[in-house]
Amino acid sequence: MENFRQIGLLGRVAEAKVRDTITHLERFLTEFGVEVLLEERVADALPALDSRSGTISMIGETCDLAVVVGGDGTLLGAARELARYDIPLLGVNQGRLGFLTDILPDHVEERVGAILKGEYKLEKRFLLEAVLERDGQPIGKSQAVNDVVLDSGKSARMIEYELYIDDYFVYSQRADGLIVSSPTGSTAYALSAGGPIMHPRLDALVVVPMFPHTLSTRPIVVDGNSDIKIVIGANNPVNPQLNCDGQVNFSAAPGDVVRVHKRRHSFKLVHPLEHNYYAACRDKLRWGESLDRECYDT
Amino acid sequence: MENFRQIGLLGRVAEAKVRDTITHLERFLTEFGVEVLLEERVADALPALDSRSGTISMIGETCDLAVVVGGDGTLLGAARELARYDIPLLGVNQGRLGFLTDILPDHVEERVGAILKGEYKLEKRFLLEAVLERDGQPIGKSQAVNDVVLDSGKSARMIEYELYIDDYFVYSQRADGLIVSSPTGSTAYALSAGGPIMHPRLDALVVVPMFPHTLSTRPIVVDGNSDIKIVIGANNPVNPQLNCDGQVNFSAAPGDVVRVHKRRHSFKLVHPLEHNYYAACRDKLRWGESLDRECYDT
Amino acid sequence: MENFRQIGLLGRVAEAKVRDTITHLERFLTEFGVEVLLEERVADALPALDSRSGTISMIGETCDLAVVVGGDGTLLGAARELARYDIPLLGVNQGRLGFLTDILPDHVEERVGAILKGEYKLEKRFLLEAVLERDGQPIGKSQAVNDVVLDSGKSARMIEYELYIDDYFVYSQRADGLIVSSPTGSTAYALSAGGPIMHPRLDALVVVPMFPHTLSTRPIVVDGNSDIKIVIGANNPVNPQLNCDGQVNFSAAPGDVVRVHKRRHSFKLVHPLEHNYYAACRDKLRWGESLDRECYDT
Amino acid sequence: MENFRQIGLLGRVAEAKVRDTITHLERFLTEFGVEVLLEERVADALPALDSRSGTISMIGETCDLAVVVGGDGTLLGAARELARYDIPLLGVNQGRLGFLTDILPDHVEERVGAILKGEYKLEKRFLLEAVLERDGQPIGKSQAVNDVVLDSGKSARMIEYELYIDDYFVYSQRADGLIVSSPTGSTAYALSAGGPIMHPRLDALVVVPMFPHTLSTRPIVVDGNSDIKIVIGANNPVNPQLNCDGQVNFSAAPGDVVRVHKRRHSFKLVHPLEHNYYAACRDKLRWGESLDRECYDT
Repeated sequence: MENFRQIGLLGRVAEAKVRDTITHLERFLTEFGVEVLLEERVADALPALDSRSGTISMIGETCDLAVVVGGDGTLLGAARELARYDIPLLGVNQGRLGFLTDILPDHVEERVGAILKGEYKLEKRFLLEAVLERDGQPIGKSQAVNDVVLDSGKSARMIEYELYIDDYFVYSQRADGLIVSSPTGSTAYALSAGGPIMHPRLDALVVVPMFPHTLSTRPIVVDGNSDIKIVIGANNPVNPQLNCDGQVNFSAAPGDVVRVHKRRHSFKLVHPLEHNYYAACRDKLRWGESLDRECYDT
Repeated sequence: MENFRQIGLLGRVAEAKVRDTITHLERFLTEFGVEVLLEERVADALPALDSRSGTISMIGETCDLAVVVGGDGTLLGAARELARYDIPLLGVNQGRLGFLTDILPDHVEERVGAILKGEYKLEKRFLLEAVLERDGQPIGKSQAVNDVVLDSGKSARMIEYELYIDDYFVYSQRADGLIVSSPTGSTAYALSAGGPIMHPRLDALVVVPMFPHTLSTRPIVVDGNSDIKIVIGANNPVNPQLNCDGQVNFSAAPGDVVRVHKRRHSFKLVHPLEHNYYAACRDKLRWGESLDRECYDT
Repeated sequence: MENFRQIGLLGRVAEAKVRDTITHLERFLTEFGVEVLLEERVADALPALDSRSGTISMIGETCDLAVVVGGDGTLLGAARELARYDIPLLGVNQGRLGFLTDILPDHVEERVGAILKGEYKLEKRFLLEAVLERDGQPIGKSQAVNDVVLDSGKSARMIEYELYIDDYFVYSQRADGLIVSSPTGSTAYALSAGGPIMHPRLDALVVVPMFPHTLSTRPIVVDGNSDIKIVIGANNPVNPQLNCDGQVNFSAAPGDVVRVHKRRHSFKLVHPLEHNYYAACRDKLRWGESLDRECYDT
Repeated sequence: MENFRQIGLLGRVAEAKVRDTITHLERFLTEFGVEVLLEERVADALPALDSRSGTISMIGETCDLAVVVGGDGTLLGAARELARYDIPLLGVNQGRLGFLTDILPDHVEERVGAILKGEYKLEKRFLLEAVLERDGQPIGKSQAVNDVVLDSGKSARMIEYELYIDDYFVYSQRADGLIVSSPTGSTAYALSAGGPIMHPRLDALVVVPMFPHTLSTRPIVVDGNSDIKIVIGANNPVNPQLNCDGQVNFSAAPGDVVRVHKRRHSFKLVHPLEHNYYAACRDKLRWGESLDRECYDT
């Protein structure tokens, strides 16, 4: 594995614990002989640090690793911004493990040290691109690591839409909305909505209806290269909202078309060698623990 | 069974088919010797009809039966308005059967005729009352036949709340929202959200979380006389919305308390003698039809 | 509350920890001045104890409280045997709390002491009775605290049946089987099969299909006094099995009829005053713990 | 597309309708100038037919297309037997469409005629291989088109097992059993058990627990080349059963290991050009039909 020489440092600096971890990391990396580039908001929040600072684009262009300190959400944001560059990301979490951030502050020296020595593995994750079209013209485009959600944007209101996959008509549906999720997002919102867990290595998308009217509808898993097309019913009384990774991006109108597909640019996560995806599942979804509902023993 | 002598006529008169059915019904009832009171919007929409007209309150005070023409939604609205009076309701649907409206236009003479001769059964349905409290004071009150829904009112946003039932702490939860449903509402929104079907005769409420963060949460069915209390987390970044029967009624604030309990006044549905609740389920939920997924036959 | 003077002691004596707890309890109760009657298997396993011994029927006839040491399954068995007598049950669990057994060995003196002083509450729980009929004649009868399950009894085989509730036809179904559960059983097998949680105070039954062919089928909750009738399809290629509380009781035949209804005799659980049903749910279903899937924070 | 010149004919000849369709097909194919080879059970059941007959192996070795008349189950059986040969399969259903058999008897001449003229598409489907190991040695091996199921084989009994995917430990679980399904099987048993629909083109497996004890367990979708390993708990009181496509193949013992992976040989389905996978979903899962639960309209 390639050794990292130039490392960008990002993080949710509004949190004191994150600032502490970044301060610790900067010193550790510098002492290790690696050059550190602080994202400018990090440099502003931590003026005592000596390393150079720069924009996130500079990190993308000049660094060969970006270390992101915060929760999974912080890493999602960094991944969306850095995906156009060919720079891998390493997540350091606060408090407890995440699905994307698998180093705890207490293990920073040990784990990051090993990674700097070339002991790591790379995992490719793709992003989704959502395009909103009106009258056949794209009027908005956005990207997501986890999921694209189209919903009514209003309390207790349904929307009507038609779903097409690779130009095949799938169904017309009345529901609170629809989630299109990547494997990365399959343990996030889509999971609460009844979707399956998809291993990150799987090249697939899942389409999960939200509270569908038709009770026999089920999540549909398709090849990662599929084109998802959602035609918003012309008679919808509301303006559906289009979200990427939980952030409202566009207000759609009846008759609009939403297209979702894999982005050309993917990103890479750096994991310690001992990383195990299912360990994160067990930890975060409480699988490890038996319920001991000993109802039928005698 | 008591014979009905004075009948109020209501309906969704924006629809031509409803107007036709009401016209037909008015003549049929008058010829049968029953006195008809047209709800005033009905009288306005159908000036050719001879019967007297009056407000919905007059119907509640002076009639001994209200016939409602339209879908289940039309009957829900009438039930909320007429529940304070002791008047039973009979639903006549358009096109296809509903859960609440079980007479089709083609059977009006036969079925309504039988009912006028005293051949019917009465079924009691209760309503829910939702009270919104701020700083310990009620600041809003509303009622629902189907369900009370508290949600974020925004696209892809969670709310945090604590649930108490009869003053026992149940859990704190992060979710899109929470549904409290009556048996009548158990085949509506709560069903799409994973709640069980509850027979209308059951004296119970069901609490159904919407896309809960904690995957082991399940719908909870409690006695109909239970007090449901939802404490909206003080740190919620959004103003949750409180809906009754799918109509936004109140915008709540972090720290507010929502209480839901059975209303003192219930209402009665009139059914033809051959009415069968499960037939409506089979018809509307497509139970009757086997899927014949003959995957393992040889 | 009545004070208990004569206490029967039962338990799963195959376990060393249970024997220790029983030994401890016997001494504690005797010192408290209460008369103890050891169930005969307990007396056999613990010959050093001085108290009198007797059959479980003697406990039912002469004691005013039965203390059951073991898991929920042990208490289920005792409840089935003692329900015909009017004797309340108190469950002492091993290791961790149960849904039915809410005293831990470490709290025996404190909690049982309080109960002996009259500080307790009583909770009524009902039992189910299952009757198997062939050619119109009952050929077997059994009872259950949790649930009655009719299934194919074979790996990967479906059965066909018709469901009737209070003599109303509900549906014909092809499924692995069908669960009829009491509120007590709603946190056991029925919960794994997708049924709702039903508060023990609720007077209701739930019918939960097991892997039904028709995807729009849902659990149905009905009044506790309902009669459930399952007509086993005459063309079933297998002999379905009828279980009560997880113990195979009867092998049914195609064309047989299974009836399930509430038993006339119920039983009472004794709880410490601080008992809270939802605390057991939180503990056993891991509700208390937030997953902190912070996917959308920034 | 290649033109088919030598066609094998198979079917569930116990059914009169199947025999009629085969008789019709044989005449149609012969008149079309194609050589027909009747599977020997077909020839026995229909002695009036003139075409040659042979074993299923002969069909696999000498024909360039196998036409299977019956339901999806008939096609599953033929696929398992013919997968070792490189012969595509075409399914003709009885009565209604299947997921695998998409030509109805009434359209035989039109659709099969088009296919004979080269107007068709081929779709690759893979099979699963299940190996049962005891003390590290394989003691049984079988294959499945739809799914491999390991369950207790008994009424209302759980089994305990550990799941490993690509040698990563996933979880230990107590459940009725576990389903490993291909995309082809995702609309069969796995769907009833809560699994997602997987498009046949997707190269993936899904692992679906059956009534798991841990409520937060979810179906897991993994790459089609994954190795699934199930270690049967050494303390299981029952002998779990291992099924392939719903047929009991092996009785396992506590401590045994079950391995499931994709088979080296896949098979091909022939579809008419107008074939659409989602149309079969809509038809068989009743998606096309809106429920019109018009609960909130006014």
